Amino acid sequence: MGDRGAAGGGTRRRRGGAAAAAAAARQTPGPAQGDSGGDPGHDPGGDFRCHKVQESLLSSASGYSNYRGILNWCVVMLVLSNARLFLENLIKYGILVDPIQVVSLFLKDPYSWPSLCLVIVANVFVVVALALEKRLAAGSLSEGAGAALHGLNLLAILCFPAGVVLVVTSITPVGSVFALAIYTIIFLKLFSFRDVNKWCRDRREGKNAPPGNGDGSAAAAGAKKANGDVGKSRVTYPANLTYRNLYYFLFAPTLCYELNFPRSPRVRKRFLLRRLFEMLFFIQLLVGLIQQWMVPTIQNSMKPFRDMDYSRIIERLLKLAVPNHLIWLIFFYWFFHSCLNVVAEVMQFGDREFYRDWWNSESVTYFWQNWNIPVHKWCLRHFYKPMLKRGASKWAAQTAVFLASAFFHEYLVSVPLKMFRLWAFMGMAAQIPLAWFVSKFLRGNYGNAAVWISLIIGQPIAVLMYVHDYYVLNYEGNQ
Amino acid sequence: MGDRGAAGGGTRRRRGGAAAAAAAARQTPGPAQGDSGGDPGHDPGGDFRCHKVQESLLSSASGYSNYRGILNWCVVMLVLSNARLFLENLIKYGILVDPIQVVSLFLKDPYSWPSLCLVIVANVFVVVALALEKRLAAGSLSEGAGAALHGLNLLAILCFPAGVVLVVTSITPVGSVFALAIYTIIFLKLFSFRDVNKWCRDRREGKNAPPGNGDGSAAAAGAKKANGDVGKSRVTYPANLTYRNLYYFLFAPTLCYELNFPRSPRVRKRFLLRRLFEMLFFIQLLVGLIQQWMVPTIQNSMKPFRDMDYSRIIERLLKLAVPNHLIWLIFFYWFFHSCLNVVAEVMQFGDREFYRDWWNSESVTYFWQNWNIPVHKWCLRHFYKPMLKRGASKWAAQTAVFLASAFFHEYLVSVPLKMFRLWAFMGMAAQIPLAWFVSKFLRGNYGNAAVWISLIIGQPIAVLMYVHDYYVLNYEGNQ
Repeated sequence: MGDRGAAGGGTRRRRGGAAAAAAAARQTPGPAQGDSGGDPGHDPGGDFRCHKVQESLLSSASGYSNYRGILNWCVVMLVLSNARLFLENLIKYGILVDPIQVVSLFLKDPYSWPSLCLVIVANVFVVVALALEKRLAAGSLSEGAGAALHGLNLLAILCFPAGVVLVVTSITPVGSVFALAIYTIIFLKLFSFRDVNKWCRDRREGKNAPPGNGDGSAAAAGAKKANGDVGKSRVTYPANLTYRNLYYFLFAPTLCYELNFPRSPRVRKRFLLRRLFEMLFFIQLLVGLIQQWMVPTIQNSMKPFRDMDYSRIIERLLKLAVPNHLIWLIFFYWFFHSCLNVVAEVMQFGDREFYRDWWNSESVTYFWQNWNIPVHKWCLRHFYKPMLKRGASKWAAQTAVFLASAFFHEYLVSVPLKMFRLWAFMGMAAQIPLAWFVSKFLRGNYGNAAVWISLIIGQPIAVLMYVHDYYVLNYEGNQ
Repeated sequence: MGDRGAAGGGTRRRRGGAAAAAAAARQTPGPAQGDSGGDPGHDPGGDFRCHKVQESLLSSASGYSNYRGILNWCVVMLVLSNARLFLENLIKYGILVDPIQVVSLFLKDPYSWPSLCLVIVANVFVVVALALEKRLAAGSLSEGAGAALHGLNLLAILCFPAGVVLVVTSITPVGSVFALAIYTIIFLKLFSFRDVNKWCRDRREGKNAPPGNGDGSAAAAGAKKANGDVGKSRVTYPANLTYRNLYYFLFAPTLCYELNFPRSPRVRKRFLLRRLFEMLFFIQLLVGLIQQWMVPTIQNSMKPFRDMDYSRIIERLLKLAVPNHLIWLIFFYWFFHSCLNVVAEVMQFGDREFYRDWWNSESVTYFWQNWNIPVHKWCLRHFYKPMLKRGASKWAAQTAVFLASAFFHEYLVSVPLKMFRLWAFMGMAAQIPLAWFVSKFLRGNYGNAAVWISLIIGQPIAVLMYVHDYYVLNYEGNQ
């Protein structure tokens, strides 16, 4: 209580200069002002004044605008609210976390590993793609036939695992999501591989190359060699068509092929260990949160859905939104920061831009451009720009990218669940009008808040839709 | 998706300059870099590069630190969480808001208004205080006798209503809190009135006055007159000892007496209407929130308390903390901004500093010095500074202020509930070690967070304690 004068001075100093000047101008002039009036010994000429004309801080006339403390308030309130939810959950359900149960999500029969077999078979398509490229490079296959065969190979990469998942009964939904994700990644990677090799052939034949720059590639390679570039020699087309080069690309944390990836000079062991620890810790946390928080909440949501009790459906949706969003955030960090950095560090892959600052995004498009950089880069390089080159408008190309993304979302959800509902497709497709709306009507922090709301609310809607339909399809009949 | 380059540039621009320079230094030199590699037509000499050596944003090596979006995230999460709680509450309890019930909190018997009678009787003490001061000013009463009689009068102001509340059975707890609060305010105001008049007499008799400044008061008054000061003439001692002057002080929104209060030049009608609207709106909101949210939560807390089920007690406490804190915040705004500004505007009282920026307080003492300025000013002027003058140490004076405040908190809670438990006293007294701990160990945002936590958690503990004891005392026997 002693340093009141100093504290008061601090407060005043923190106000805007203009406001302080205005406040000073409003003050009644007089010999004794402020706190000094409280003490008869230090009140030379006044009548013990301790008030002066001034506005309340929250009045707009005060010009005050320092609300730093509100951020801390938000954080404290969020932590306390969620601590309560956590405690309530523990009291209601006890401890539901069960690591053994996780294994059963991948395996129905411990002697049959269909997902793993499926992933191993994927190598066949890789070998086919490389063989095709070798023929094309040697000229023993025409461009047209090569394109057709590549197309067939790529189509097979998407159709074969889907067919297997739909036919084989011993495969679990989680196992098949895993296998299909691997196949999708291989599809995107081989698509990029084919494109880049095609561009290399085009340049070799002088097509598309800017005048006077025909042998630029070799010159650039020479320059690189002089610089050292981590001591590796540069590879030029068609010397890149080796298993070693292709498999490095397949394991590298990127979807865009490049003949010579930027490499980091060494494996930083402390960095690797930290990311590995995060990887192990967050996967445990994810599994724990899903078992403890998501599963009971979803199970409790089935009854309101069956009864079509709308106020309860919304309540359940909001209840689900918090753990779902938290899990998504942890998943984001776990996959895009921990896992991809571990892989990149082990492979000495230099480009670690797996995400950009999507958390600040003020429009829906900025979010989709920045949260998943490997996919965004692929879409831009192998889908959006080629479409623009072929004369499509920006708007059409953007819509096409969203629809392609919607297709893959649907593919990764519907096939494993053996249930075709189009919720995921519609969820992604709905981003197009949403993006238009946000960019048209919301700016700055409002746009940012709109992106967060669409993330927090949008996902649990889709999750509840699928779980509800899956539940009705698989368990309703048994009751 | 089209403005990816621009967006990427924006991201990079937002990073710290040093980090950007470091990132540039880390980049592999080469003719074709970045996004241009994605398009074969614009790749003059490279091998279709689309990667470069760079760190992930969340790696500490990236030097990135822009997390503006997180504040929006916090706000969105808080709004959604509380929307869910609100909906859950509505589904569970229906609409509990009942304005008629509020009347019954003030009146047991519609023909007996004990609280109002008590407030009217308070005028007796005011008249006594003024009569004493008039005698003292005229010199017909000695200073010693005057001090004794004033002391008796002030003691009676605190004891008389407490006695009435404890004896009269028709008075309700809410009604008696109201009456006791009025009496406490009158006590503090008359204490200040007596002190200031004493200082004036001391100065008139030449005591304590700095040399050569004996008639400074009159000179200052003359200067004020020339300045106009809203056209009012200045009052000097003993001309201030009138009913008009004293009753202006009693209704003014301050606890510190002054012979000539600063006045605002006119009643701003729009400002007054806005504050009046807020006053009416927020009081409705407060009553609604208490009936709908606090009461059922408190009722649900009784069983865990009876069973001494600790995990459930903590869960209930955290559940209660959110509405309690929200209600306290609304109450703060309602009372300190809306109500006091309405009173001040009507009375053309100039000093509107009823609170300072306590929401940014980084220590417990700063909070207590800034959230309730009328009381803080009174404590400083009539309690803390006089103690320092009498030779008490700063620490002792500060502790004494906290203990006096603790006494009044207890007085305002225990007497109306007719139940002496010391929880409020201990709650205020606990601020002393808390203030020591926070100022010793926590700084900046951590200190601010600690203040918020103590506010959010501390209050519901005290509320639950009293409600539990009141419940046990009044309802347990009936079951």
